[in-house]
Amino acid sequence: MDRDNPFELDQRLQQDTLWVADLPLCRVLLMNDRRYPWLILVPRRNGLTEVTDLNGEDQALLCQESLQVCRLLQQLHPEGKLNLGALGNVVAQLHLHHVMRYAQDPAWPGPVWGHSPAEPYPDPDAQELLQRLRSLL
Amino acid sequence: MDRDNPFELDQRLQQDTLWVADLPLCRVLLMNDRRYPWLILVPRRNGLTEVTDLNGEDQALLCQESLQVCRLLQQLHPEGKLNLGALGNVVAQLHLHHVMRYAQDPAWPGPVWGHSPAEPYPDPDAQELLQRLRSLL
Repeated sequence: MDRDNPFELDQRLQQDTLWVADLPLCRVLLMNDRRYPWLILVPRRNGLTEVTDLNGEDQALLCQESLQVCRLLQQLHPEGKLNLGALGNVVAQLHLHHVMRYAQDPAWPGPVWGHSPAEPYPDPDAQELLQRLRSLL
Repeated sequence: MDRDNPFELDQRLQQDTLWVADLPLCRVLLMNDRRYPWLILVPRRNGLTEVTDLNGEDQALLCQESLQVCRLLQQLHPEGKLNLGALGNVVAQLHLHHVMRYAQDPAWPGPVWGHSPAEPYPDPDAQELLQRLRSLL
């Protein structure tokens, strides 16, 4: 893919998530799984798979936007434990997970990735949460 | 713990890893599991559990040192896929995993965390690898 072409989101990411907002570098997505507060950052650059594929300026932006998302999740869930991850073993497009974890959640203390099928948000809840997230970003 | 006291490494991290080097912010540790090229960064500040607990300067340093470790692993394993993770569900002390993954490794495509017991390096291999890592950092 060419970096000058319009940004293309991976099909699997598109299916599994809801659009929240676009930050200067990244698209912010909500994982459509009501069991976990789970936001994903996807740098809006085509053809990247590793953080080292970003140029220096974008690497710094990714760090800043990731911290912004961490603080947002902590504001909404002050008692949780943040889990961050960039794997890409299944979905190659570079993306960074931010998941707020609780000792009562289904996958605790293991990682959420690959644990069990998602449970989508009921639609009114999803819209309410998306608006809340947008207002706080 | 007080930030002015000498840095204390979590006991579990100490048991499971081998010391590689100290960077300006982080201690670099090699996970003692010969199945995965796996380096861990631990900011040398006491009492931290989340990336947001670091001050702004240290957050930027962590990003830089993480990228340095990513490039090191890519230099040694150009065909692998990087996995990054900061979980802390079991070991609370803030630490950041960098694991080079292959489609042939035991946990692929799932995450390595919590997958199966480590297989320690035989001692001569460990010492050789540690010296190689130190020479490249």
